Amino acid sequence: MDSATFRDKLFDAGVLIPTGIDGLYGRSGTFEDVVLALGNLVTRVSADNAWTRVRFPPLLSRKAFEGTDYLKSFPNLTGSVHTFMGDDRKHAELLALVDAGADWSPALEPAEVVLSSAACHSLYPTLTGTLAADTVRYDLSGYCFRHEPSIDPARMQSFRMHELVVLGDTDTTHAHREDWVQRGLDVMASLELPAEAVVANDPFFGRAGRILAAGQREEALKIEIVTAASTEQLTTAVISCNEHKDHFGVAFDISTRDGGVAQSACVGFGLERLTLALLRAHGFDVADWPSGVRATLWP
Amino acid sequence: MDSATFRDKLFDAGVLIPTGIDGLYGRSGTFEDVVLALGNLVTRVSADNAWTRVRFPPLLSRKAFEGTDYLKSFPNLTGSVHTFMGDDRKHAELLALVDAGADWSPALEPAEVVLSSAACHSLYPTLTGTLAADTVRYDLSGYCFRHEPSIDPARMQSFRMHELVVLGDTDTTHAHREDWVQRGLDVMASLELPAEAVVANDPFFGRAGRILAAGQREEALKIEIVTAASTEQLTTAVISCNEHKDHFGVAFDISTRDGGVAQSACVGFGLERLTLALLRAHGFDVADWPSGVRATLWP
Repeated sequence: MDSATFRDKLFDAGVLIPTGIDGLYGRSGTFEDVVLALGNLVTRVSADNAWTRVRFPPLLSRKAFEGTDYLKSFPNLTGSVHTFMGDDRKHAELLALVDAGADWSPALEPAEVVLSSAACHSLYPTLTGTLAADTVRYDLSGYCFRHEPSIDPARMQSFRMHELVVLGDTDTTHAHREDWVQRGLDVMASLELPAEAVVANDPFFGRAGRILAAGQREEALKIEIVTAASTEQLTTAVISCNEHKDHFGVAFDISTRDGGVAQSACVGFGLERLTLALLRAHGFDVADWPSGVRATLWP
Repeated sequence: MDSATFRDKLFDAGVLIPTGIDGLYGRSGTFEDVVLALGNLVTRVSADNAWTRVRFPPLLSRKAFEGTDYLKSFPNLTGSVHTFMGDDRKHAELLALVDAGADWSPALEPAEVVLSSAACHSLYPTLTGTLAADTVRYDLSGYCFRHEPSIDPARMQSFRMHELVVLGDTDTTHAHREDWVQRGLDVMASLELPAEAVVANDPFFGRAGRILAAGQREEALKIEIVTAASTEQLTTAVISCNEHKDHFGVAFDISTRDGGVAQSACVGFGLERLTLALLRAHGFDVADWPSGVRATLWP
């Protein structure tokens, strides 16, 4: 079954609800129950450490966003938010554009926010200064946006990511990334999903991006756990283990307590992708899922 | 205590996390626990009817959005999403704008989506056609965006709304709106929050908007339950009971089974505002909240 056929089946069963936009779907109550259970599972399997649980809205400060190199690396995935700030006269001009079926964006101005593309991107700008401890650990979860319309239901434009983020020294952040490759594989086994860990790269844009991607792979900074989410192939990344080195520490002026630049690492769980992989592997009737999987999700 | 002082206290206690943007805040784990409990409370108090539970992402199809009169009525609250769709050459132009500290929006194009301003706005476009039953009932919840920067923590730009939506004939939808005014007051009493129901209007834009607002009040189409969320005054709407008449039925061509235009009504619960009202009334230590309130939220 190809991914388009799988999407049709999800639509037909009411598990996903089409909106006319590839990658933007409503979710059934059952789908949401699985998403919620997966978030709780991440909390349980990470409980051997203490995490500061923080939740951010799906938006990020434009100024903080401009402080990163996201526009350099992923301009095509960006979601910049624009709004109308004019008076009655300007409003009439806006409505005339809309009525004419024309592009009405010239009547808008940039708002103070952009859409977040990763749950952890909202965190780093709040940590400018010196870390409160040698190592700080955050549990984050929220909606992310990436403009990559696709008929593959596992490639949504708006989706949730649950993240475990560590900031501190090089050894600690490297260990976090390393540790969670195996832990991620264990999570997949407990969900009875096929999985393998592969060296990966972010989808850097354009000619310069190819060099960045090659560098990232060479240093093995990104390890993805892939599974079969919308086809039989193990091609969909569902858990991503990333070492950022001093990338965010430099961008947001975050220091360790001994005065060095803070290093960071994160492991991200794609909640919609994991849910799709479960639905594909175990069927659309959650009550009929293998008892081991149900016990893992709803202990 | 004024709302700015209350916001400072929320920041100091780490209940809300500043982002540098008025109306955009991170939430502590405790804040999220209350939001989650309030959503579950809405589910419990509405359990005498069967609701189709659906969840939408924080984005809406641009085309569906253009099919409403939102740009006519609330242009200033809009969040239009724009992205980069160019090649390497255009990318260099984009980065030059960013480096110069200039407005880089001219390098972007409108994406297929806009931010949702109400949880139910994503639903109506999916119902084009004839309703599946004489009356259909939906339980929705999700992040909404309204561009109205404010230092009042109860006026966020990005917040969650839990909604109970009914579509059907005039009597049923009117009854839904009426019924939930009293039920909403009962919910407030169970949370030990002061509350009153008042006739209200949406913040329609500009000169024409004043006429629309007056008409809405005259027909009493919007009843808000207000409470003290960020000051001692009962001025913050936390539950909103709305009769849309055929507004969405016409816009999205939704018919009842007997061939009439579908009427709709919704009751929306502002989850962040309710949480703030609870924190203001009962203190920042949730474990110390009155036992009746705790039993209501965590039965």
